[in-house]
This record gives sequence, C-alpha cells and structure tokens, in this order.
Amino acid sequence: MNSDRFSGVLAPVVTPFDAQLNPDRKRLEQHCRWLLSNDVGLTVFGTNSEANSLSTDEKLGLLNYLVDAGIDPKQLMPGTGCCALTDSVRLTIEAVKLGCRGVLMLPPFYYKGVSDEGLYASYSEIIERVGDANLKIYLYHIPPISQIPLSISLIDRLVKQYPDTVVGVKDSSGDWGNTKKLLDSGWEDFQVFCGSESVLLENMRNGGAGCITATANVNPAAIRQLYQSWNTPEAEQMQSQLGPVRQVFQQFPMIPALKSAIAFHRKDDGWHQVRPPLLPLATNDKTNLASELKKLGFRMPNL
Amino acid sequence: MNSDRFSGVLAPVVTPFDAQLNPDRKRLEQHCRWLLSNDVGLTVFGTNSEANSLSTDEKLGLLNYLVDAGIDPKQLMPGTGCCALTDSVRLTIEAVKLGCRGVLMLPPFYYKGVSDEGLYASYSEIIERVGDANLKIYLYHIPPISQIPLSISLIDRLVKQYPDTVVGVKDSSGDWGNTKKLLDSGWEDFQVFCGSESVLLENMRNGGAGCITATANVNPAAIRQLYQSWNTPEAEQMQSQLGPVRQVFQQFPMIPALKSAIAFHRKDDGWHQVRPPLLPLATNDKTNLASELKKLGFRMPNL
Repeated sequence: MNSDRFSGVLAPVVTPFDAQLNPDRKRLEQHCRWLLSNDVGLTVFGTNSEANSLSTDEKLGLLNYLVDAGIDPKQLMPGTGCCALTDSVRLTIEAVKLGCRGVLMLPPFYYKGVSDEGLYASYSEIIERVGDANLKIYLYHIPPISQIPLSISLIDRLVKQYPDTVVGVKDSSGDWGNTKKLLDSGWEDFQVFCGSESVLLENMRNGGAGCITATANVNPAAIRQLYQSWNTPEAEQMQSQLGPVRQVFQQFPMIPALKSAIAFHRKDDGWHQVRPPLLPLATNDKTNLASELKKLGFRMPNL
Repeated sequence: MNSDRFSGVLAPVVTPFDAQLNPDRKRLEQHCRWLLSNDVGLTVFGTNSEANSLSTDEKLGLLNYLVDAGIDPKQLMPGTGCCALTDSVRLTIEAVKLGCRGVLMLPPFYYKGVSDEGLYASYSEIIERVGDANLKIYLYHIPPISQIPLSISLIDRLVKQYPDTVVGVKDSSGDWGNTKKLLDSGWEDFQVFCGSESVLLENMRNGGAGCITATANVNPAAIRQLYQSWNTPEAEQMQSQLGPVRQVFQQFPMIPALKSAIAFHRKDDGWHQVRPPLLPLATNDKTNLASELKKLGFRMPNL
C-alpha cells in the first residue's frame, strides 16, 4: 500500500454550530483532537458534517483554522466537491496547499440525469485546474443523497487517465455488490472505503482500505479496533458488536443524533445545534437516544 | 393585483460562458436586453441558467454587473436559494439591496427527506436575517430536479407567517393538479407561475400570474402574446401553436439546446459553451435542432 494514501477509519466530522448558527471552531477542533486520539482520521466536510449547509468561505475558514491550530493535515480528507466547478476548484486548491493528504469529492449534484461524459468533464476540469501532483482524490459515491451515481466505467476512465490523482473511493451506496465490484476492479493501489462500519470486515477481507462512517464520530475506538484486528479470530465478534450501537443511531435522524450523543457525553448542550433544513432531535428523542445507549452500556471512549 | 408583484412571462435566463468557462457578462447583458425587448422578465440564476454551477461570488458579480449596466432591477427575479443558509442570505440581501422586485428561492437541496418543519426553518431563517420589507420571495417548487418538494401545507404556513414576503411560487412539478391546488389555495395576492408555457392558458384561466419557462429564452414573443391575449377567442390557437417549438427543444437536453439555438440565430458559436456536468450539444444534434426549427419556420424574434 502506498504510504501517501489514506487507510483505516475516518469520521465524517460533525460540524458544531453556535447559537447564531455559525460554525463553532473551538468545538470542532476539540472534536477533531478527540477523534485523532482514537486513531480515527478526519473527513471534515462530509455529508454528516452538514458540509452542504456551509458556504465555501465557511469551509475555507474552518480548514485553515484547523491546520493553524496544529491539526496534522495528513489526517485531513476534506470534502471539496460542490455544485459549482469554481467552488470545487477553490476548495481543492486550498486543501492541497494546506497539505491535506487527500480530498473526498462529490460530483456536482443539482442537475440530475447527467451523463458519465459530463461527470468525467467535471472531475477532469477540476484536476486540470488544480494541476498539482499532491492532489489525491477519493471519489464520493453516495447516490441515495447526491442522486448522482458514479458508475464503475466512469471511475475506470478517471483512474486510467489520472492514476496518481484519483486514488480511491468512498462507497456510500449501501450496496455491497457495488463495493465488491470496486474492490475487484484491479486498479492498482486504489483505496476502497465502505461508507458504513457494518461491512468493514467484509471490505477488509476483500482488499479494502477501511471505512468512513458517521458513527465513527461517537464510537471510533471499537471501529478502529476491528480495522486493526480484521485478520484475527476475534474479528467476527468485533464486527457483530458494532451492530447494536449503529442500530440505535439509525432509529433517529443520523446527524442530530450524533450531535445529541456528543452533547450528552460531553455535558455540553451547545452540541445539539444543527443548520436548517436539519433540526435538532426533539426532546423525547434526546431522552430515548440517551436511554438506548445507556442500555447498551455505551460511552464515548477516552473523553 | 399588487403592482409591486411580478406577472407575465419570465425567462430563466441562460448563462453564457467564455472559452475558459467563466460567465460571459457581455453576452448575458445582450441576451437580457433582447428578452426585455420582447417583454419578458429576467429570472437570472434559475435552473436553466446553470445557476447551481455558479459560485455565490460569480452570481453576485453578474447581478451587480447587470444592474450597473442599466438593466431595470424591477425586471429581475434572481434565483437566490442555495444549499448553504449563508449563501442564500448573502445573495438575497444583495438582490434586495440592488432593488430586484423579487427573488426565486429553491429550498436547500442536498439533504433529502427533510421535514416540512426543517424547510420552514430554512426559509424563516433567511427571511429574518434579510429583515427587509422589500424582500419578495417566489418559492421554487421543482421536485424532479431539487428532489425537495414544497408541500401545500408548508407554503400555507409560510404565506400566513410572512404574507408580505412570501408572495408567489413557481411550480415546475409538471403536475397540473399541484398547480391547481396552489391556484385554489385562497392566499391573497399570491402569484402562481407555471414552469412551462404548455399550461399557461390553463394557469391564466384559473387566476395564475404567468409563467417562467425555459423556452422563453428563444421564443419569448409568442409566449408573451398568449399571456396578453389569454382572455380572447384566439388564445386556444396561440396555446396550441406554442407546442411544436417546445417539443423540438424537448427532444434534446434543454439547456445546451437553448444555447445552441441562440448560437445558431445569432451566428455566435460562443453561445454553445456550458459548464460541466452539462455538455454542449453534439455536432449532429446541433444540426438536427437547427433543421427541426427551420422546418417549423421558427426564428428567434426581433433579433
């Protein structure tokens, strides 16, 4: 495995907001440091980061803040794919300049039913404009939300044209068959991350690179442990132990539930804030979530 | 009808790009002036404007340019609804400051399956932050593309809370039943625009305000004539005569086809340019489009 590539477990880092709905840099930095202390990498500006509720200026401000604060950019895989070509280029250039080891890149997602040729043109234009050998792109396939799938043939074309730049994918399709096809593609040194820890063991057994998963925001150590131990007799049990925690979160809207769990464990109600169109968990859901987690004996580790 | 409200026919103004894919201000201004000369209003930054392939800075630049160039802001209904709350607020504040008579506002469209409560919070937060009695919002219901429908009950709540601000809707659902429900809602002075001239007569007969339609970019005079004459014996025939032109464009991807028709009629190949993920029409499609329009005897009027 190429040492300049990501592997392991990354969290799509939830973005805290203050009472005025501005991004809360201090809380974000604190959460990033805690994730790193649990050996989990930082996919800031992923779907679960409410990235697409942030302006490009806000993302640039946060990314610069984190690096200035001493967060190792080699642990950062910011999401930089926007609807507008110029936003994607601007964010990606800054990420490379700051030394981020890679970026996670959504396709432009407003116009639907666009062709593979058009999506190729989009990625290609960004790559050419950034024009930097240090750019490492992880393609972001999340059709349930983006509604813009990245076909295997599109990825194949991108990897063959830009083998040193298009180096991996996050597959959040929820379709193991698609992940398996990506794993079986035969692209050299191509890192396949699954979008949920529920298939992490399967992904690793098939040559995957790890996972980038929402629940790593609250349950990083156990997911990381499975990643490290996937080739041991205990792996099956570790995998099955991850299920109940994930299932609790899946009973609620994921992003507010993650924030609610952080608020609860940190005793910091500021963490409940989300940006519209999302809403914080209702009071009874907050109580139910805390109670369900308590029943499992779950605590956020190493707080 | 309240005189400070829009009515009639508006074009979601296509955005020309130069060879480097930058917005082409001069060509845009020229196209806007031509549309105005055909008595059609200017919905810059609509779906057919490739608005969501433009950054907020690019939109602000274009809007200021047009007003500085002397385009009457009372004819401007810019699209200002973005994924990020802060982008929507910034664009909307500028539109109001520039004197635009109204804005067309998409809901945030990345996160899917969001609640009416969350969408209400989004619109409400924007309205409160803009905080200006001159703000007039036309809600933009276009579920086939945004994937975020605006329910009648959501609109009802917004209109009742902000009766002087939420003053109309563009219904691009393609579902006449929905448009009819909007028309029958009983909201005072509420302007319902259909999203296609194919139901313009029906819309006017039921109390609608007009239409905002892609093909007004090329066929404005005939659509405007139907709007003006809807209550005459000739209206049915005018409506039916609009069909064949629209049907030609619908055989092709709409945005590149509109641009191709403009390029052809203006003898200006610069108009073919689109931003990824869209692609210009293929050469044979350009030829076929021109040939189909010629068969109908169609010419862009008053060029």
